[in-house]
Amino acid sequence: MALATLLRPCAPRSSTSSTMLASVARRQSRVTIAHRLPCSSHSFATTSPAMAPRDPAYRVITNDTINKAVLQAEYAVRGAIAIRAEELRDDLEAGKQLPFDSVVSCNIGNPQQLDQKPLTYLRQMAALTEYPDLIDFPESTKIFPADVLARAKRTIEEIGSTGAYSHSMGVPAIRKRVAKFIEERDGHPASPDKIFLTAGASTGVSNLLQVLISSPSDGVLIPIPQYPLYTAALALNEARAVPYYLQESAEWGLDVEDLRSSIKKARSEGTKLKALVVINPGNPTGNCLSRENMEDIVRICYDEGLVLFADEVYQDNIYHHSKPFTSFKKALHDLGAPYADNVELVSFHSISKGQTGECGRRGGYFELDNFSEEAVEQVYKLASIQLCPSLGGQIGVDVLVSPPKEGEESYLLWKKERDGIANTLKGRSEVLVKAFNQLEGVTCNEAEGAMYLFPTITLPQKAIDAAKKAGQEPDAFYSLRMLEATGICVVPGSGFGQAPNTYHFRTTFLAPGTDAFAKRLQTFHESFLNEYRD
Amino acid sequence: MALATLLRPCAPRSSTSSTMLASVARRQSRVTIAHRLPCSSHSFATTSPAMAPRDPAYRVITNDTINKAVLQAEYAVRGAIAIRAEELRDDLEAGKQLPFDSVVSCNIGNPQQLDQKPLTYLRQMAALTEYPDLIDFPESTKIFPADVLARAKRTIEEIGSTGAYSHSMGVPAIRKRVAKFIEERDGHPASPDKIFLTAGASTGVSNLLQVLISSPSDGVLIPIPQYPLYTAALALNEARAVPYYLQESAEWGLDVEDLRSSIKKARSEGTKLKALVVINPGNPTGNCLSRENMEDIVRICYDEGLVLFADEVYQDNIYHHSKPFTSFKKALHDLGAPYADNVELVSFHSISKGQTGECGRRGGYFELDNFSEEAVEQVYKLASIQLCPSLGGQIGVDVLVSPPKEGEESYLLWKKERDGIANTLKGRSEVLVKAFNQLEGVTCNEAEGAMYLFPTITLPQKAIDAAKKAGQEPDAFYSLRMLEATGICVVPGSGFGQAPNTYHFRTTFLAPGTDAFAKRLQTFHESFLNEYRD
Repeated sequence: MALATLLRPCAPRSSTSSTMLASVARRQSRVTIAHRLPCSSHSFATTSPAMAPRDPAYRVITNDTINKAVLQAEYAVRGAIAIRAEELRDDLEAGKQLPFDSVVSCNIGNPQQLDQKPLTYLRQMAALTEYPDLIDFPESTKIFPADVLARAKRTIEEIGSTGAYSHSMGVPAIRKRVAKFIEERDGHPASPDKIFLTAGASTGVSNLLQVLISSPSDGVLIPIPQYPLYTAALALNEARAVPYYLQESAEWGLDVEDLRSSIKKARSEGTKLKALVVINPGNPTGNCLSRENMEDIVRICYDEGLVLFADEVYQDNIYHHSKPFTSFKKALHDLGAPYADNVELVSFHSISKGQTGECGRRGGYFELDNFSEEAVEQVYKLASIQLCPSLGGQIGVDVLVSPPKEGEESYLLWKKERDGIANTLKGRSEVLVKAFNQLEGVTCNEAEGAMYLFPTITLPQKAIDAAKKAGQEPDAFYSLRMLEATGICVVPGSGFGQAPNTYHFRTTFLAPGTDAFAKRLQTFHESFLNEYRD
Repeated sequence: MALATLLRPCAPRSSTSSTMLASVARRQSRVTIAHRLPCSSHSFATTSPAMAPRDPAYRVITNDTINKAVLQAEYAVRGAIAIRAEELRDDLEAGKQLPFDSVVSCNIGNPQQLDQKPLTYLRQMAALTEYPDLIDFPESTKIFPADVLARAKRTIEEIGSTGAYSHSMGVPAIRKRVAKFIEERDGHPASPDKIFLTAGASTGVSNLLQVLISSPSDGVLIPIPQYPLYTAALALNEARAVPYYLQESAEWGLDVEDLRSSIKKARSEGTKLKALVVINPGNPTGNCLSRENMEDIVRICYDEGLVLFADEVYQDNIYHHSKPFTSFKKALHDLGAPYADNVELVSFHSISKGQTGECGRRGGYFELDNFSEEAVEQVYKLASIQLCPSLGGQIGVDVLVSPPKEGEESYLLWKKERDGIANTLKGRSEVLVKAFNQLEGVTCNEAEGAMYLFPTITLPQKAIDAAKKAGQEPDAFYSLRMLEATGICVVPGSGFGQAPNTYHFRTTFLAPGTDAFAKRLQTFHESFLNEYRD
């Protein structure tokens, strides 16, 4: 073997493969070579200033040495199609001719990127707390309502400075108001000592999973389809994601028997089940669970000894009066003994969704219920190591849980803006559902909540074959073609998981110009089907 | 054995022990019991609605089942003494009589908690970008300088809304300005594609370690004493922290031979060394490394195949003209081939320190140099899963790297505020160093950089014995007594690591009223020595 060939495994590689088999194969071939060439860090071991020669191009961090859990984690929402969308956006900016004049990011629930106006009240609070001198400028009374000026003053008295680290769990006064919000919502007590403010719900989910997972045979039940944060966070913690299926034919509701059989199957395979994740309202499905489903889930968690993770970040995005939001905290405590005082429940909320839509501010909270003191202590230690969530995010949470009250100067504008956003989203979802259901081979459930639609697409066998040939999942193939033809960026169903041999995509209904959007999609879909018709 | 005794291991426990031996012992006793009682989740395995009875008080998450890596992580900066300080603060607020009238938090580098005023320019930018309507109010020209109004307008054009998720690496335009800042600082090229904006330096350190560590035998060299984020992050990643000692007698400089022997020893014990961490200026030591030390470190990283982690968050806290800040990026590239193009370097910066002191805003960045493309790709994936750092933090970084220029309307006030903070900190450090060196048995190096002093205290044997009796480290015992007597909260040296049989504490020099502070400390120290004199 030539020296150049031997040296190659040590040099940086630009191609990436994240499959385990390929990685193991490469690591094995690497081990052989390490004995012959100074390629591994071990071969540099010496305390003499006269060092063994090293391959200058050696890199410590390569696909062979990177944490396997990181290599294997996937996050489709910002995956290959999203990256291609960025390239197309750059092309447009550079003046390149494309079949469309704008790229529309329907892949991420990022309302303010799609021109949703922020709530004025929240932004006024943000500006005044960021620059408290502003509160006392005489000109400010012409700019800011009196109630906002007064509240900003109180907030600064409570927190000191937005530039200081707060308590690692978040500002105590804000946590008190979160507890009050939960109590008024649910009619059950809540304690600020069990509430942690976070930099969005994702950080909270990751931290809780990190505390929970203690061995590679630990498993967590996740709904399929699911928001891929869960599979990614489980992969990073080297735990098993155990699927249970939502029923598309029953408005994405839960089949309890199917859940029980998932539990049985996982245990028979040696999985130590530790928790069950519910996303309600659902992402990507847009469903709201029935009260009966929720009670079944609580009972199962109790009977089976599972922590219940309730991802409730879409609790304000509700479109059907017949299915109002009920929190799992309420469902649990309404059930009474033995459930209410014993099922370990963590519920997540966020300022990124709802009518607030402040994704870029990074704010949220979680509440721990029935957790042992020692568990709370470890969650707190993890929060301490991370110092604290940004004060801007914390103030965002404060405004979310205690908006202006009826009678206050800011109330009417706040209500008008909030209702406007809610109605706009409901209207857009209806237009899109109708448009999807008119497409050949496409069916789509109505959105009961959240900000997503998840239509099924029946793909011709020729399209499936073409996808396989291109090394892509069929729905990824379809979504990429959609992007290239229309500039509309969605996420293929395979990124969320779906029943075998079904194909979907997820789109937000946040983009303005829904009719034009539907038209672009229809033209693409027809031409795609014509190209691949069996 | 009575049934109650058998049941107990399943019930919540309030006491916490994080030592491995105790944890293993308990786990073993648990395993035995699990076969007899429905205490483990396995014993609930059933698909029948008629469930086996469960112990209602069963908890999934207990010290027996929590992730061992989390259990074992420690973070002294917000540890037991900090928690006691909070209790004392609550006592004072509740009107309780204590030997002092305020608790002074010298345990955390949190300048704005200790009344350091934020830089006006940064806060004006924050307010205007949070509430862009403000830019166009006619009254605003009376409140904000024209250059800030113009810049805020440009920033909003670049980012869209502070409420939208940005690119996961941070706003491209801000990353370009970070690259320009690095180029002007170092005289070497920097690329925005290798710069990641973060929610403070800590997030960056954690993410990089997560990518780097792939097996429990992996090790990372850390300076002793060190900022405990590193030991905590390594514990969470189940990697080995391999100490190398800074030399207190040589102004906390590096002994290269000692570093080499640490490397040799670690390898002989089977540790796969992957990286070396440097904190420069030092935390908790306040030292600035000599250029010679820095070049030695670069050569060692090259020779030994180690990634270099350069924690440079205190680069603006410099107090000696004879030791100006030099970045490791500059030291590396000034050295030329073969080092410049091959040593994998990640350097961290933050808005929390320097004269900015915006800890609560959570902003920072890191730059990757000589990382393989595949490594950058994995770091990017991790950033994507975490969505993005807060836009408020990102705008803070933008202002840090591109402050007002000479000639602009805001320049003079900005410079005055900045110089004022720098001079105040230098003055306070000098007063405290002098006071410490006058105490019996205490010696303290001058602060060359950062915002900490780390004096040695010679403790009488009787005090050491009393500490052992109380189950505390001797310097923790001393620090706790200091807190109870004076209200001053510091961190014991044992929280950072120190040479065997030496005792220290770390204090910030951020608190106002340095003379009174020194006096309180002196009175306590004398009475402590009198109590425990041999």
